[in-house]
Amino acid sequence: MNEQMVVSAARAREEMDAKTKPLGALGRLEDVGVRLAVLQKTLTPRVDRARVCVFGADHGVTDEGVSAYPRAVTGEMMKNFDRGGAAINVIAASANIEVEVIDAGVDADLGRLAQIRHEGIRRSSRNLMREAAMTAEELRAAMKVGADAARRARDDGMQVLGLGEMGIGNTTSASTLLCLLGALAPEHAVGRGTGVDDEGLQRKRDVVTRAIDLHRAGCDSGIETLRRVGGLEIGAIAGAALEGAALDLAIIADGFISSAAVLTALRIAHDDSLERGARLARSLFFAHRSAELGHRLVLDQCAAYPGVDATPLLDLGLRLGEGTGAALAIPLLRAAAAVMRDMATFASAGVSAGEHASAHGV
Amino acid sequence: MNEQMVVSAARAREEMDAKTKPLGALGRLEDVGVRLAVLQKTLTPRVDRARVCVFGADHGVTDEGVSAYPRAVTGEMMKNFDRGGAAINVIAASANIEVEVIDAGVDADLGRLAQIRHEGIRRSSRNLMREAAMTAEELRAAMKVGADAARRARDDGMQVLGLGEMGIGNTTSASTLLCLLGALAPEHAVGRGTGVDDEGLQRKRDVVTRAIDLHRAGCDSGIETLRRVGGLEIGAIAGAALEGAALDLAIIADGFISSAAVLTALRIAHDDSLERGARLARSLFFAHRSAELGHRLVLDQCAAYPGVDATPLLDLGLRLGEGTGAALAIPLLRAAAAVMRDMATFASAGVSAGEHASAHGV
Repeated sequence: MNEQMVVSAARAREEMDAKTKPLGALGRLEDVGVRLAVLQKTLTPRVDRARVCVFGADHGVTDEGVSAYPRAVTGEMMKNFDRGGAAINVIAASANIEVEVIDAGVDADLGRLAQIRHEGIRRSSRNLMREAAMTAEELRAAMKVGADAARRARDDGMQVLGLGEMGIGNTTSASTLLCLLGALAPEHAVGRGTGVDDEGLQRKRDVVTRAIDLHRAGCDSGIETLRRVGGLEIGAIAGAALEGAALDLAIIADGFISSAAVLTALRIAHDDSLERGARLARSLFFAHRSAELGHRLVLDQCAAYPGVDATPLLDLGLRLGEGTGAALAIPLLRAAAAVMRDMATFASAGVSAGEHASAHGV
Repeated sequence: MNEQMVVSAARAREEMDAKTKPLGALGRLEDVGVRLAVLQKTLTPRVDRARVCVFGADHGVTDEGVSAYPRAVTGEMMKNFDRGGAAINVIAASANIEVEVIDAGVDADLGRLAQIRHEGIRRSSRNLMREAAMTAEELRAAMKVGADAARRARDDGMQVLGLGEMGIGNTTSASTLLCLLGALAPEHAVGRGTGVDDEGLQRKRDVVTRAIDLHRAGCDSGIETLRRVGGLEIGAIAGAALEGAALDLAIIADGFISSAAVLTALRIAHDDSLERGARLARSLFFAHRSAELGHRLVLDQCAAYPGVDATPLLDLGLRLGEGTGAALAIPLLRAAAAVMRDMATFASAGVSAGEHASAHGV
């Protein structure tokens, strides 16, 4: 079967260039189409089915007053997801995208919620300002929650997996991860999250600074950094990205937290082998440029890994999370796959201008 | 019925701010949702059905060698649209968007094509470098082709109408329109279109310069400027925008040519009355920032009209036309309508954090 042959980027690009349009006239959509062809090993890629997984968890560090919202909001939002009333529910429904919400460690009794998968490892991670956020066993379990979600997505016939999160306090965790992975100072990487005031922002930066001081010496690998200052939902996202890439799914990072988790996954993959890093790079798409302060830095760090295209597809001033940006970007992947798969070529359409345009070196 | 009451932007914004998300966290999507509520006069706007109209026509000015493609390509691409093989066909199909292709003046025998509406006024406009592109009667007919398309869209239940075009030579027409409406010099407004080489670009700029010299004195209104240097498909788009706004449809401008036609419509509306101008401004969305040189200037000119939000939703380096950018932006309008319509409020979801966040002035 042709379908299982390797499709090189050059071959896919050649096919894209034969389509009835001036060379390159569909801009980044062409690049996405070419990447989907390579990833799916076919010149007729499909994005029929897509899912956004929303991993929820609480964070011990909220004890330090780093968020504008109380911790209880994580659980309340899980109930909102369960009833279909949150942004990710309605945005995904508008574009025929499935949503799977997974409790990876929310500090609330969610047992009665039928639309939520209950895979909580513990009720919130530990306070990363005072100790490691997770034990090695807890992190392994969190990453397995994500890896299982990726395998479910593949088994259910998804071609695309968006990675979202819900967790009060998780911009603090993601900012600390970013600082430690990128050797950055907190004043550049710590933003307002869901909207702390000036005083709250200063407190948040102080917390991150103390966390960095506590953990820096121990962070000798991606896994260990994630264990010390990540969170249960962030571990799950990293696990989902790594396993999704191994399964040749297209993985869409959402905003600041999701991208920080993906950055961590890139580090973990490269700690392992160049090949595993390349595999993840090949699968990754970045949905949008978040309004959260540190997101640009996360994207810069991701772009430093070979083969990663970290230029986001959308720039709409989003800063919500939940996978909303990923859901908004999925129709662009669908369109790109359709262009690669279904557009006529100059030859097949009997349009005579292909050679003419090529002769002009367009 | 509430549904037919006026919904003020302030009332719609109040409702948007009550949704279960930090204030403003959905960025521009919130603005789009608020605008759709105002336009549809309901707090539960819908974008269930959307259509992109592609108006095709040829241009007499192609006799001057301004395009990388021969004039015959317009007709060949109409056949490609008819068979469903062009970019707009496959992109629209990927997002459940209808496509209507209308011959407004293509220089080819398209009579056998069943999927094309045949409303050609004449086989191409006249050569705008040497004479007016259209007579007053021809322009009236062209604008009626567009207005009829807008009414059909409304009658068929569309909430959104994207405006696309196909016409070899039409970047020359659109560039001349832009120069005359905005008092701009050709070197800033004339780009490579589908990809002319350096020599072709110089020839194109010379043609536009001569056209400006010929017509400037006579261009005392939007209509007269359009008649002299527009084209049949550009007239149709202007007519569709004006009528679509009168019918409260959301109108999505595509790239350089479509946006130049919409700019002309704004001028025509304002020549008539401030109220008509405001009506059009209220309906207009701009799909994407085109890679074509003059597009930024067209958007700047549009933004100078009161009430126009000319910041494009997408920036993907597109320069194809056909309404492809409009089709790619429509899922964002759909998502914005879903957010405005279906998201739970803090009160309805029992999420307690709304007041907390407001208290922080987020």
